Amino acid sequence: MSQLLDKINTPEDLRRLRVEELPLLCDELRREVVNDCAVNPGHFASSLGALELTVALHYVFDTPEDRIVWDVGHQAYPHKILTGRREAFKTNRKLHGLKPFPSPEESEYDTFTCGHASNSISAALGMAVAARLSKDETVKDGKKKDNGMMRHVVAVIGDGAMSGGLAFEGLNNVSSSPNDLLIILNDNNMSIDRSVGGMKQYLLNLNTNQRYNTFRMKFAGWMGAHGWMDEKRKKTIIRLSNAFKSALSQQQNIFEGMNIRYFGPVDGNNVIETVRVMRLLKDMKGPKLLHLHTVKGHGYKPAEEMPTIWHAPGVFDPETGKRREVEGQEGENEKSQKPPKFQTVFGETLLELARQNPKIVGVTPAMPTGCSMNIMMEKMPSRTFDVGIAEGHAVTFSGGMAKDGLQPFCNIYSAFAQRAYDNIIHDVATMRLPVVLCFDRAGLVGEDGPTHHGAFDMAALRPVPNLTICSPMDEHELRHMMYTAQLPDMGTWVIRYPRGCGSQPDWKCPMRELPVGKGRLMCEGKRTAVLTIGPLGVDAGEVAREENAAHYDMRFLKPLDEDILHEVSERYERIVTVEDGTRNGGLGSAVCEWLQDHGKMIPVTRLGLPDYFVEHGTVNELREIVGLDKESIRSAVKGCDASCANK
Amino acid sequence: MSQLLDKINTPEDLRRLRVEELPLLCDELRREVVNDCAVNPGHFASSLGALELTVALHYVFDTPEDRIVWDVGHQAYPHKILTGRREAFKTNRKLHGLKPFPSPEESEYDTFTCGHASNSISAALGMAVAARLSKDETVKDGKKKDNGMMRHVVAVIGDGAMSGGLAFEGLNNVSSSPNDLLIILNDNNMSIDRSVGGMKQYLLNLNTNQRYNTFRMKFAGWMGAHGWMDEKRKKTIIRLSNAFKSALSQQQNIFEGMNIRYFGPVDGNNVIETVRVMRLLKDMKGPKLLHLHTVKGHGYKPAEEMPTIWHAPGVFDPETGKRREVEGQEGENEKSQKPPKFQTVFGETLLELARQNPKIVGVTPAMPTGCSMNIMMEKMPSRTFDVGIAEGHAVTFSGGMAKDGLQPFCNIYSAFAQRAYDNIIHDVATMRLPVVLCFDRAGLVGEDGPTHHGAFDMAALRPVPNLTICSPMDEHELRHMMYTAQLPDMGTWVIRYPRGCGSQPDWKCPMRELPVGKGRLMCEGKRTAVLTIGPLGVDAGEVAREENAAHYDMRFLKPLDEDILHEVSERYERIVTVEDGTRNGGLGSAVCEWLQDHGKMIPVTRLGLPDYFVEHGTVNELREIVGLDKESIRSAVKGCDASCANK
Repeated sequence: MSQLLDKINTPEDLRRLRVEELPLLCDELRREVVNDCAVNPGHFASSLGALELTVALHYVFDTPEDRIVWDVGHQAYPHKILTGRREAFKTNRKLHGLKPFPSPEESEYDTFTCGHASNSISAALGMAVAARLSKDETVKDGKKKDNGMMRHVVAVIGDGAMSGGLAFEGLNNVSSSPNDLLIILNDNNMSIDRSVGGMKQYLLNLNTNQRYNTFRMKFAGWMGAHGWMDEKRKKTIIRLSNAFKSALSQQQNIFEGMNIRYFGPVDGNNVIETVRVMRLLKDMKGPKLLHLHTVKGHGYKPAEEMPTIWHAPGVFDPETGKRREVEGQEGENEKSQKPPKFQTVFGETLLELARQNPKIVGVTPAMPTGCSMNIMMEKMPSRTFDVGIAEGHAVTFSGGMAKDGLQPFCNIYSAFAQRAYDNIIHDVATMRLPVVLCFDRAGLVGEDGPTHHGAFDMAALRPVPNLTICSPMDEHELRHMMYTAQLPDMGTWVIRYPRGCGSQPDWKCPMRELPVGKGRLMCEGKRTAVLTIGPLGVDAGEVAREENAAHYDMRFLKPLDEDILHEVSERYERIVTVEDGTRNGGLGSAVCEWLQDHGKMIPVTRLGLPDYFVEHGTVNELREIVGLDKESIRSAVKGCDASCANK
Repeated sequence: MSQLLDKINTPEDLRRLRVEELPLLCDELRREVVNDCAVNPGHFASSLGALELTVALHYVFDTPEDRIVWDVGHQAYPHKILTGRREAFKTNRKLHGLKPFPSPEESEYDTFTCGHASNSISAALGMAVAARLSKDETVKDGKKKDNGMMRHVVAVIGDGAMSGGLAFEGLNNVSSSPNDLLIILNDNNMSIDRSVGGMKQYLLNLNTNQRYNTFRMKFAGWMGAHGWMDEKRKKTIIRLSNAFKSALSQQQNIFEGMNIRYFGPVDGNNVIETVRVMRLLKDMKGPKLLHLHTVKGHGYKPAEEMPTIWHAPGVFDPETGKRREVEGQEGENEKSQKPPKFQTVFGETLLELARQNPKIVGVTPAMPTGCSMNIMMEKMPSRTFDVGIAEGHAVTFSGGMAKDGLQPFCNIYSAFAQRAYDNIIHDVATMRLPVVLCFDRAGLVGEDGPTHHGAFDMAALRPVPNLTICSPMDEHELRHMMYTAQLPDMGTWVIRYPRGCGSQPDWKCPMRELPVGKGRLMCEGKRTAVLTIGPLGVDAGEVAREENAAHYDMRFLKPLDEDILHEVSERYERIVTVEDGTRNGGLGSAVCEWLQDHGKMIPVTRLGLPDYFVEHGTVNELREIVGLDKESIRSAVKGCDASCANK
């Protein structure tokens, strides 16, 4: 029983509460989030940190008419619960259940796609400009509120996301067009791991310079208390503030430098204070930024103490905070006899290689724990670089190091590497620099859903010259590929591998050089040859053996193993390709092209990701849906016609 | 005759001059650049603006051992002339001649790929970190200078490029690792067009706050003059500077805020002053930024007065400054009876549509003149947005506007749109938002070379769900596509078209709706069907008619016209596909996939861009090289075997 929360079906209901009731509501909401996440795991600590500011936002602003644009969306569970999805939240991240991140498809309160960091300012600026243009009746059928007020637009961005170049590009443009955007900087000094970089240092410094801001907030508050808050008088505040500014401030503010009014820092876990400040800023004209300090995991001790682990803790006991190890979750099940996660193999192997090859350095954009580069980072801090959420920079920086003799391993989640597409082409591939790009979370990632599936990497990079692109079938192959990639004169490599566990419990094999662009015959067969790339080869190989088909693990998408293709096209009647990437443009496509280029008329059935954004669910559920599970592979191998095999 | 320049074959020679001789050298060098560019056109005004700082850099630093990393490279002509390429400069931008931008393939003085803005800080930071790690002997075989000094690394970045998120990501990381990077901010208040955004405003404000900086420079100068410049004493300067800072500075500097020492602004067109300051900063430890003010086009009046036009003026008379109109150059040959440039058709049509549809807004990342959005911008300033060099933001900002009811046309050069790959997927396509992405400069661009060819857009975007991707064969089709794309419920469109002129002098046809995903039969034929997308269809169509082959203009890459494919596979014996994009993954690939999916065994010959980075030269020269000229198309149509047609 939650006496306040039970009354709230929509933010409308929330806005009927008295402000003094909000702390109790926050407690109830926190208990709800803790209890739900304890049994139905998901992102956790971010939501607790942003809980009070979420309540304040829906309390002060007229959602959904007013727009809240979340960044990333890790922090949006309280938002979901308050916006009519309290019951549904128990299905969060489950197949056909609530989506893992805010999504306009799911709710009118979710204004924009969330998942990749740093897009909120740009998107919200677009909405704020649209609101202004609509009000100006430039846009005739733009919605107008009855009272003639423009809708409000609020972007909520974390300090971690602020290191992304896109956030800066947004900031840099905020002052260029008339708009009344409010940016909430939710500063908890964390990405998933601790925040890094100059901006973080800068935000820390801001705290030490509160004189002017304290004055400005107090003055604005006094004006409000004295009924001075009509439009004209708000202008007076601003003008006065500017006048006092030079006298009071020792420090030019980076945001003010870009013509964005800065307010804060304010304790964002104090809901009453946060509501008070948001009300002051709500109808202030022009772009402004409110700097809130929050604690990641706020109000739940274990999460406050270890926010990185509690970012996505898996199942846990809400009373004791004891986490249960869950298969496929971000737990620590490495010591068992089960196959290890590819992440662990990457991390351990990188350290092993770095000990042998002094040129090796490691680069990660804010994912040292997620990709396991923390293993090398602990032993070799001067040779590992967490550059913050900045995928483009991660690649170009790696390019610079490679150009002057180092051998960077740059690890990026496949979906986030889309941010670095040009950097891979322009800053690495044109010079064929020895950078090893390791794409973690390639293929279906499961519960994180459409924004996080690593679907496009193979198709997008295959046309790029000078790249060697490969994907290991298992842990041993990953080690061989990492070893081979760092040998002299290997140029630029992309090694893609999925989230989660492989198939080789005894993974720590001796490493050896693989012939570049050469696949391997796994078993011979009769009529059909199955060509696979990546870990789906394990299942596909089993099916092939069962169905008396040949199986080749291609290993390399580029260069393509032409010997295998010649062999297959001579010996077999048909080909089935299997890959954990888009059907359009990937391995299957490359095989079709090659056959045509060589005048070979053999039927090809291509299995891969379909031409729609694949939803969330467990990886196994999704493989069934998209036709990459064993049974779908089997029917393709058995030769049911192409159109039926390719859902 | 140039008395000083004639003595200089390498920067080594330059460093033998007395500092007082440098102004004369600069004059000679300027005359050389003007005279060479007058007959052999290229980027011009940027090089004049950066001339003195180029001389100063090579004078003060020990190039090529010390690294200079240029950003974009528009400004690098003096650098080329000073680094052993004076004679070769007469072949600049010509086929097999000097490359259009600095390139490590061409010279050891060119340290990194140039072409796309904002990468210099990240790349140079990589080199600076590599220098430090090498010195620390972490990297055993890293080169060391004999005197035990580390090599110096200098990034030279314009204020325009500073608006790119990648530059910010670099800045944000500069202070994260030990390094002695020097960043030269070449601030001329211009991209190709005038710079925009908060950062520009910020840099302007910096000028008004010179008290502290003037003091610091003078103090450092005094220390130098008194022989106080050894390592220990430099630290003293820094410490003293910091002590004086709070007393003297009214303004926290954005760079200092990120722990990058800031110096300037200094007149970067004063070579002696620039040398003096660079010498002071050369061996200063830690990252630092020198802010130089320069004038784009400096020393050549016409260019100083109209720097946008003189960015790349084409052929001109060096005495009078009169520009000659050159076919295919950025001149104004619109009023003639020749076909117009696609750019002009885009610009005029956009304005025409915006007058009819009040939801239409225009977005350009720093290319209003280049893409002709300036036509709409002049008439409708509040509905057009130049967001600066910030392709990612341009797309996400467009997404935000589209989400709230506007109809953005976002125009980006195809090669630069690689920077926005994730934004297109995550911030537009996932929501199927009504953004019309117009990719200018798609396909071969000619003299700007490998970094500027729009080669990858079709292959990279074809696998992305929810996109409609098309390319007009001529100006009329471009107009129809733009018209159709902005009709209700059309979702996300990509319209790609090339640099330069089309084929329809009488281009201003009435616009009409095209059926989405439907191509058109241009002529019927006998044995072979030629399927084209984009303006290559004009030449390919002629060849088809001459060779008695059928020609279909596919119009749409996605959705693919399946009716045409059914028809073709029933009526014809073989297919030739022609596209101005990579062979891997593009239209030809889509056709091969479709035929396989439908069990049609018909030979396909795919013509398109090859799997290497295509060099610079005229578009016609390059088409011959890659096999996209009429004769290559003809031999493919005639049915010489696939491997010979596909060079």
